Amino acid sequence: MTVSKTAAVGPARPSRSARKESADAATESTALQMGELSELLGYSLKRAQLKIFEDFLRCVAPLQLTPAQFSVLLLLDKNPGRNQTEIATTLGILRPNFVAMLDGLESRDLCTRIRSANDRRSHILALTDKGRSVLARAKKLVAAKHEARLNELLGPANRAALLEMLATIAREF
Amino acid sequence: MTVSKTAAVGPARPSRSARKESADAATESTALQMGELSELLGYSLKRAQLKIFEDFLRCVAPLQLTPAQFSVLLLLDKNPGRNQTEIATTLGILRPNFVAMLDGLESRDLCTRIRSANDRRSHILALTDKGRSVLARAKKLVAAKHEARLNELLGPANRAALLEMLATIAREF
Repeated sequence: MTVSKTAAVGPARPSRSARKESADAATESTALQMGELSELLGYSLKRAQLKIFEDFLRCVAPLQLTPAQFSVLLLLDKNPGRNQTEIATTLGILRPNFVAMLDGLESRDLCTRIRSANDRRSHILALTDKGRSVLARAKKLVAAKHEARLNELLGPANRAALLEMLATIAREF
Repeated sequence: MTVSKTAAVGPARPSRSARKESADAATESTALQMGELSELLGYSLKRAQLKIFEDFLRCVAPLQLTPAQFSVLLLLDKNPGRNQTEIATTLGILRPNFVAMLDGLESRDLCTRIRSANDRRSHILALTDKGRSVLARAKKLVAAKHEARLNELLGPANRAALLEMLATIAREF
């Protein structure tokens, strides 16, 4: 194994111009050369997604809902009578993670699991009254704060184009 | 707590037309109404990102690299002499996760940690020769398989527009 000399000694800071070039880096003080990373769609998607999830958490903080919990409540509201497996599969959540998430939602009285009359091994999921009320409040916060700011940043046309491309990737890639 | 009747009885399957409407659902057999979810940028980003990461793992399977490991190798290659904290901060990886990732990369002789001469608490990171060689092969696989297919799906102009919007979100949101 060989390590280049620069690694052992190491430039303390890149030059001003080098720092300026890597506009993508996290902060000025640690600005690194991003190289091919800034051209990688997967990396850019992940960074944007993390930013959006952070903002979501801030906007919905009074209700203590994560994006994944919000998506479960939304889906239960739209699809009464569906079972645990159907909801988890549709959202692409792995079974153990989904069970843990339902435990959390149920302990807060936001949803409930009912043993299916047709198949005793299957659990039907349903929102509680409290779940419906929390969902309604969360929807308002998301629309008024989170989505409104995204709309402002991108503009409605770009936002629609972005959604369309993301849906294409999710569906066809 | 009240649960609506439909939840207890539950429709076995939505009608054919209802199933057709929810084109976003994971599979035909479990197609649910996605409702507001399909309009939520965060949700769409997450689904697209998961698809892209799955494809990345498939394309780079011979080298056993995750997207995060690939991004670390890329960054180390472009930024010799930087320390652990700078790399982790730039990639937005939490310290405990980053330490575990470095343990894995180091055990495979892909990178190495060198105690800094200036600050004994700080570790300078460097690619090994094997790390450079694996990175070079990974870059070829990513370009020839993963990115080429994405380019084909979206078209170069859309792909560039998508990257631009994601960068805007990561930078300004």
